[in-house]
Amino acid sequence: MLTVDQQVYFMREAIREAYNAQVMGEVPIGAVVVHEGKIVGRGHNMREKFQDVTFHAEILAITEACHAMHSWRLENCQLFVTLEPCMMCSGAIVNSRIDTVYYAADDPKAGTVHSLYHLLNDDRLNHQVKVESGLLADQCSQMLKTFFKSIRKKRRIQKRLSAHD
Amino acid sequence: MLTVDQQVYFMREAIREAYNAQVMGEVPIGAVVVHEGKIVGRGHNMREKFQDVTFHAEILAITEACHAMHSWRLENCQLFVTLEPCMMCSGAIVNSRIDTVYYAADDPKAGTVHSLYHLLNDDRLNHQVKVESGLLADQCSQMLKTFFKSIRKKRRIQKRLSAHD
Repeated sequence: MLTVDQQVYFMREAIREAYNAQVMGEVPIGAVVVHEGKIVGRGHNMREKFQDVTFHAEILAITEACHAMHSWRLENCQLFVTLEPCMMCSGAIVNSRIDTVYYAADDPKAGTVHSLYHLLNDDRLNHQVKVESGLLADQCSQMLKTFFKSIRKKRRIQKRLSAHD
Repeated sequence: MLTVDQQVYFMREAIREAYNAQVMGEVPIGAVVVHEGKIVGRGHNMREKFQDVTFHAEILAITEACHAMHSWRLENCQLFVTLEPCMMCSGAIVNSRIDTVYYAADDPKAGTVHSLYHLLNDDRLNHQVKVESGLLADQCSQMLKTFFKSIRKKRRIQKRLSAHD
């Protein structure tokens, strides 16, 4: 069982990953996978850079963790992520048998843990995942809002400039 | 719109991928992504070989298609797969905006297109996917049954041998 201090530490590491995405101009979402108190996988959103739809933070962190653990089974692992996982990432979490997911901000449009579905807690599947949400949610939510605001501003400026061409 | 002959041809290509998985000792599931009548992505299950939980046939075919199309958006593409997609793969299909999924056999335990959920047709999400199922279903289903039967047989033999040690 992770202490609150450990939970905050690992969510801050997920936020650090989200910043790495932001620096690349990607939607700032980050994730880490933890096993026995150590990070075994890290990832941040890189969908635009690599033009690969599967390059979400969680998928990359899970893939790195699988390689580190030499196993597709991530039993007794925890995943920390700055935004509520989408359908694809919830599926990867269930398939990998991750023990607990800690996510920060809700995603009302595409979140599948609490918002649109409860995919991590379906007792028809052979694995259910414990979920904790809300840790450092304001910080993660604010980072996303600021990012989308700056994107909208850039688009407005580009529109005005192209009107002058 | 693909003709029935084209649909059969592409599902046979997905089955060819499933055989490639079987040869490697993997659960025989295969997929191809098609754009304008041509295959742009192929994949077969390689979870055990690479010990990576994300290495499902559909994910690998979608990733290859993204690279071929230089885009994470697979609009106007069709995916052919030998088994009903799981939660993770349904999520990747929705995220990539694939137009139509043709799957062969139902997966009552983990299928999320018709069996456990209808994830490809959720009008709260910004993309819905057309679905056709049942094409060459018996052949795909039989391939899976034969595979699992041989796995059980191998296990029984190993058990007997280890009892003699």
